[in-house]
Amino acid sequence: MFTVRPIGVLHTPWHSTSECPRNGRRADPPPLCHAELLAEFRDGLHSIEGYSHLILLYWLDRAGEPEMVFKPPFDDQPRGVFATRTPRRPNPIGLSVVKFEGIDAQGRLMVRYLDCVDGTPLIDIKPYLRTTDCEPEASMGFQANRAPRPG
Amino acid sequence: MFTVRPIGVLHTPWHSTSECPRNGRRADPPPLCHAELLAEFRDGLHSIEGYSHLILLYWLDRAGEPEMVFKPPFDDQPRGVFATRTPRRPNPIGLSVVKFEGIDAQGRLMVRYLDCVDGTPLIDIKPYLRTTDCEPEASMGFQANRAPRPG
Repeated sequence: MFTVRPIGVLHTPWHSTSECPRNGRRADPPPLCHAELLAEFRDGLHSIEGYSHLILLYWLDRAGEPEMVFKPPFDDQPRGVFATRTPRRPNPIGLSVVKFEGIDAQGRLMVRYLDCVDGTPLIDIKPYLRTTDCEPEASMGFQANRAPRPG
Repeated sequence: MFTVRPIGVLHTPWHSTSECPRNGRRADPPPLCHAELLAEFRDGLHSIEGYSHLILLYWLDRAGEPEMVFKPPFDDQPRGVFATRTPRRPNPIGLSVVKFEGIDAQGRLMVRYLDCVDGTPLIDIKPYLRTTDCEPEASMGFQANRAPRPG
């Protein structure tokens, strides 16, 4: 067992899981959200300003109990938890590739494409590196005909 | 504080952190690695076979103490931890986008592009979705002239 500690908190327009978009690209236009770091971690943002995209990891503290196999709302067949992005995972860690729009006057990161509830604990920020994180030709299994990206 | 539990273990060719490649695309050719799930989580792989790429999250249990600002080995200037992919993070969670080559006779996922030590605890498997995870035009800040992708 390992211990994860929050490094900050995410601010989004959604106040319950039922309000959240299925993914952060579904809202059109995607709203501005904020990632607020605890004071002790703010020095860790040094040199982050040149990245256009970041990967945020967060703890989905309102997810229900994990289910190994379940029927997704968009699907007519049962699927394994690791073949979906459901929050109900053994470790409820959410991941979003977000557009980074700079740091505001309060020191918060301004981002778009989040999909989680307001107040969700932030646990990591990583730079998005297209050299290792980008797979334009990736095939999407049973989701191949789903989840078109708006715009 | 939240508790993370291993869902399995990663098998790679590298037996110490000093042997590990800087990222999973640096080894040429990238070796075959394996992700072995604990029995209780194996049903969660249902329907995963059609994805060409996955996102693996793992716990970097041999990382040193986190440093908010440090000088990366490839750099001549100090950088913030959140502007790099260093393992020495407040929460030492590693993330790799891996090529998925199927499930072997022992039920292990066969993957390429890992960069971590043999025996690293696996904490999540997510499908890579090019509709939300792929940003071919992303700018890479101070790493813009680094990390070319082999091949």
